[in-house]
Amino acid sequence: MAIIVQKYGGSSVADADKIKNVARRAIRAESAGNQVVVVVSAMGKTTDELIKLARGIEENPDEREMDVLLSTGEIVSSTLLAMALRSMGAKAISLNGAQAGIKTDSVFSRARILNINPRRITGELDKGKIVIVAGFQGITDEMDVTTLGRGGSDTTAVALAVSLGAERCEIYTDVDGVYTSDPRMVPESRRLESIGYEEMLELATYGARVMHNRAVELGGVYNMPILVASSFNDNPGTLICGGNPVEVANKVRGIAHDVNVAKVTVVGVPDKPGIACAIFEPLAKAGISVDTIVQNASIDRVTDLTFTVAKSDMHKAMKVIEPVARSVGARECSTDTKLAKVSVVGAGIQSAPGYAARMFRALYDEGINIELITTSEIRITCIIDEARVGDAMRTLHKAFELEQGV
Amino acid sequence: MAIIVQKYGGSSVADADKIKNVARRAIRAESAGNQVVVVVSAMGKTTDELIKLARGIEENPDEREMDVLLSTGEIVSSTLLAMALRSMGAKAISLNGAQAGIKTDSVFSRARILNINPRRITGELDKGKIVIVAGFQGITDEMDVTTLGRGGSDTTAVALAVSLGAERCEIYTDVDGVYTSDPRMVPESRRLESIGYEEMLELATYGARVMHNRAVELGGVYNMPILVASSFNDNPGTLICGGNPVEVANKVRGIAHDVNVAKVTVVGVPDKPGIACAIFEPLAKAGISVDTIVQNASIDRVTDLTFTVAKSDMHKAMKVIEPVARSVGARECSTDTKLAKVSVVGAGIQSAPGYAARMFRALYDEGINIELITTSEIRITCIIDEARVGDAMRTLHKAFELEQGV
Repeated sequence: MAIIVQKYGGSSVADADKIKNVARRAIRAESAGNQVVVVVSAMGKTTDELIKLARGIEENPDEREMDVLLSTGEIVSSTLLAMALRSMGAKAISLNGAQAGIKTDSVFSRARILNINPRRITGELDKGKIVIVAGFQGITDEMDVTTLGRGGSDTTAVALAVSLGAERCEIYTDVDGVYTSDPRMVPESRRLESIGYEEMLELATYGARVMHNRAVELGGVYNMPILVASSFNDNPGTLICGGNPVEVANKVRGIAHDVNVAKVTVVGVPDKPGIACAIFEPLAKAGISVDTIVQNASIDRVTDLTFTVAKSDMHKAMKVIEPVARSVGARECSTDTKLAKVSVVGAGIQSAPGYAARMFRALYDEGINIELITTSEIRITCIIDEARVGDAMRTLHKAFELEQGV
Repeated sequence: MAIIVQKYGGSSVADADKIKNVARRAIRAESAGNQVVVVVSAMGKTTDELIKLARGIEENPDEREMDVLLSTGEIVSSTLLAMALRSMGAKAISLNGAQAGIKTDSVFSRARILNINPRRITGELDKGKIVIVAGFQGITDEMDVTTLGRGGSDTTAVALAVSLGAERCEIYTDVDGVYTSDPRMVPESRRLESIGYEEMLELATYGARVMHNRAVELGGVYNMPILVASSFNDNPGTLICGGNPVEVANKVRGIAHDVNVAKVTVVGVPDKPGIACAIFEPLAKAGISVDTIVQNASIDRVTDLTFTVAKSDMHKAMKVIEPVARSVGARECSTDTKLAKVSVVGAGIQSAPGYAARMFRALYDEGINIELITTSEIRITCIIDEARVGDAMRTLHKAFELEQGV
């Protein structure tokens, strides 16, 4: 019998009716002849409420204690789902991270799964039960509870699917799947039937908030098919899987965007060895991720160094950079926070000619200025004025004919 | 270094300020030169809210799932207390029932502690930490979470104190200790400095809702001194311990009452062997505790059988009794729910003459009719009209001169 792992997010288990809905879906998957494991997130805003409770005690609560506290949210929803399933006549049991055999390292608040011992899960499946696993959590060798950080329940689901040899991991959320662009900004956006792991990673990193990269990466490494679909309807969703079944003509799969972008320019930096190191090492030590980095051609051995950070890291970044800039003899630091990224994503677009040119032409025709450009194997990103991001997405969606199905 | 186990009830950890108050008290106990273990209940009404959540899914939720669900309440308060302690500069760690090594049987919702492996607790104490243990819960050999039923956190505290060889177990609650009577009904009530385990059991069973009998019994078996005191002030509380240090002149220690009493009389029962068995076996099977039982002297081989049950069990009891009464040829069943118990409690009062007579005289002088009488080694109980319970308590408190200290 095939094993299916389903994961339901917080909005899918937000109240009693929604939990019953999830129970019906799990029973349907079982009735279709599968063994079913369900991973659940905490109900609705539970995690936020627990964080608030902790902050009422201490602004910066201890991470070990915080992990124990937050892990209770998923335990609560897992037991409620088990009750709902039993009330519908199904056999069901809830397991917490420890019981599910999810061993992690002891980096509290962002632990990594080291291995999974699925003995208990398979034992319960073999008794004919639907097994509900509290997501987002694991346990260390010392029996301390850990949480997996952002996207933790997605990661739990994919990791369990891999360790159980599941046929498929299904991620149920409040959207219908992965779209060619953000439907709120580009009405012509179209749901993709399938997408590759790498494309999904780029789309997610560059704006499509459907599921977390960690889980997609894990799926990619073990080639575990991941279906992303809505828990509120029966639309078919999007299958994330290895390699496109058909070599598609139009290689651009989607347009992503991100408005959490700030640009820092260190102006008038002496162009000598060690400067980049002097600037970026302190940022790394402060835990600030730097995205695009551009260094202009040097004029008179003086250059400008530009990079982007998350808008939310901007203030912290400037605190680190200003003393460094002075010490290396730079003239000044300037910043711009009214920016956005817009990206076209598709496997192989960098190796195929003409995609970048088509992107720049479309933006130019729309009168949109490009501040910075950055590319990867499967993505071309332009940094533009935040006010024009909607226009940019719509014109690119049209330029790459994404409104037309494959 | 002596080990002290402190337990704080739900009202003592109901909000952030109260949790901080508990943290200060634990630190004070540590500063006095002790190793401190703190057992906590769930915050305020948390348990009720979790029950409501479950009932939103299913009227009669599965007990295993219910135990997992309810156990999260104590885990939440234990982590918050650990955070509060750390914010005050103390070293602290929270442990759930499994981590604390509390092994139970697998009778969900009312598990019994089988044994405690305190290795983790003593290890953390030896690192100079205050150890907070989530009360009310344990774990089976199969790693399933259990809860200990009513009074569970008190039981956790006393059991831990015993297994750690603690000097004392301190139960902090919202009352100042054990009183000679209920201060709301008898203004002259006086706090007892100490009381024996058996006396405490009788007082608790017969109305003093300070702590649960299971925990007192456990303390008695292992002769663990238990201090009952308020978490909201520094009043000295009441020490429950073995044997009174001084042989006190006035052996009556307190007046207890209970209004959760209903009386059932099976009228006109044929007086032959096997009748009591025929009536009380079905009640036992239905899980109904029968308290006082009185059988009148037989006239013409027909007798009346009277017994009391908790008022809340009355309806269920009648359903069981009526068909049985018919089948044994009884004339009818009558009931009375407007009753109360009032008891005088003190070690050795049954073997010392005159206490029962003094009790009956006091009630008679007050014009209070006695419906039924029942006694134990250390208690005399009268069942009276519920409307007169306050009068009865006040007159008995006076008759036994309880307003005067020892």
